[in-house]
Amino acid sequence: MAYYIGVDIGGTNLKAGVVDGSGKIISEASVPTGADRPQDVVLQDILGAVKTSIDGANVDAKEIKAVGMGSPGMIDTANGIVIYNNNLGWRDFHIGEKMSAALGIPARLENDADAAALGEVVAGSAKGAKSALIITLGTGVGSGFVINEKIFPGCEFGHMVIAYGGRECTCGRHGCFEAYASATGLINSTKEAIARNPGGIMADIAKKENTVSGHTVFDAADKGDEEAKRVIDEYTDYLACGLANLINGLQPEVVSIGGGIGKQGERLLAPLRVKVEREIYKGMKLPKIVSCTLGYKAGLIGAAMSVR
Amino acid sequence: MAYYIGVDIGGTNLKAGVVDGSGKIISEASVPTGADRPQDVVLQDILGAVKTSIDGANVDAKEIKAVGMGSPGMIDTANGIVIYNNNLGWRDFHIGEKMSAALGIPARLENDADAAALGEVVAGSAKGAKSALIITLGTGVGSGFVINEKIFPGCEFGHMVIAYGGRECTCGRHGCFEAYASATGLINSTKEAIARNPGGIMADIAKKENTVSGHTVFDAADKGDEEAKRVIDEYTDYLACGLANLINGLQPEVVSIGGGIGKQGERLLAPLRVKVEREIYKGMKLPKIVSCTLGYKAGLIGAAMSVR
Repeated sequence: MAYYIGVDIGGTNLKAGVVDGSGKIISEASVPTGADRPQDVVLQDILGAVKTSIDGANVDAKEIKAVGMGSPGMIDTANGIVIYNNNLGWRDFHIGEKMSAALGIPARLENDADAAALGEVVAGSAKGAKSALIITLGTGVGSGFVINEKIFPGCEFGHMVIAYGGRECTCGRHGCFEAYASATGLINSTKEAIARNPGGIMADIAKKENTVSGHTVFDAADKGDEEAKRVIDEYTDYLACGLANLINGLQPEVVSIGGGIGKQGERLLAPLRVKVEREIYKGMKLPKIVSCTLGYKAGLIGAAMSVR
Repeated sequence: MAYYIGVDIGGTNLKAGVVDGSGKIISEASVPTGADRPQDVVLQDILGAVKTSIDGANVDAKEIKAVGMGSPGMIDTANGIVIYNNNLGWRDFHIGEKMSAALGIPARLENDADAAALGEVVAGSAKGAKSALIITLGTGVGSGFVINEKIFPGCEFGHMVIAYGGRECTCGRHGCFEAYASATGLINSTKEAIARNPGGIMADIAKKENTVSGHTVFDAADKGDEEAKRVIDEYTDYLACGLANLINGLQPEVVSIGGGIGKQGERLLAPLRVKVEREIYKGMKLPKIVSCTLGYKAGLIGAAMSVR
């Protein structure tokens, strides 16, 4: 039997796993990324996680055919190089070559959102879809587009400006999709609403949980908080705007929403579908809009499946 | 030798031509579209133009292998159907089937911007590019993306919102790329500037030419008109914003600018390159940004090449 190593290089954790040809994880390992350290030191931890996952898999080393990695940032897939990653502080990191040399198997590097998208298409929410757009709403907004189980490389629309001259984005542009539709964007809006109404339900939930998270505003809306409903309404307006841009532009059969916000399920998706349908071309069929189902495993599975 | 019929269905004119395998037009014909007539009546005129072009080509009918068409609007390429076209008023028009039956050869339907993009890659400004984005700045904004001489189907970003809540677009959305970056958008901005300053250089040029066109503002700027320079500056800001969205998202090797505005050459492209470079990901190489070279022939050649 053939197995593949998947590596997901996250801003918080590094995950590695042994995956079979159907996208099933046999064993996995996770270590903190420690993003403030030199890139070659982080590499050693990635190799450590890979070895832990291989040890746990109980498979013949010869059956492990290749390693696929998913990394955030600007990726040179052809040469296995992370050209630029502003969250990890990586520049011109030849990680493909280094991993291949260390493990003695071929290595491939994909953008993390692309890898996650492939994972969802092979084994998750978009299984069987001819074309699928996977949007990850986390710290940033990741996008991946998969046609016929192949990654459409570099389909990165988190930094698509949707609001000219709008909110400043971490990338330096103003009004990026990510600045509004990321979990960070929603949390910022939630915090602003709490500041405006420090005695309200949202403030109460935040106090109890000792943090403002992506679900604070949804929990408050469930309790009937009108201000929370307004925050969600505005958030889904922007999210629908960006999604409609991409649905008009790429015409996917399925749109899967992942990341922290994707977990809100129908309380996000139901209003979103209505708004997206209003914004896409008249006569166009609304794609299936669903939540991602693999969670953090999508990146790991997809990275492994990219070398299948 | 094998020849292919290309048909370009424009809002103003219908063009047909016989094209050889290298993308060279052997003979062509053009008739007014008469977009306000029933679609089956327009079809007869398309067939008439095709026959005129075949008569003019002086080739053996057996050598004509297939017909490729480019149409604006929402296209079902797989089935040769114009699903929806708001400029021509077409709905669910099975033009592929009808053309194939009438001519006795296979027929294929592409989006017109996609066809034009393929034309520029096979025989024009983006010849030899591995991936090319062709943006047509005309009545609307068309976009086509070609990888390895294959059309990436349905890559339509004219109705990508770049200015949330902005200018109303013909599609019903607000703030579309097209509403700002089309020739129509520029002409509207020029007219507004003329209304603000009816004694200025722009007004003077418009009076002499008896119209406001896409080059009015460029001609005025060449004569030192400061208001015209401001209009161009704002126009190129929006154009650069949308282009940067697509360059970040699709990472093309070449970007070709066509349509009426594309003809402005370096007086458009020089400032545009500077602005786009500021907006794309740090570390990303600026794609070659050039003018389309085939003009109206791109759509015809590309339509023919889509069945090569």
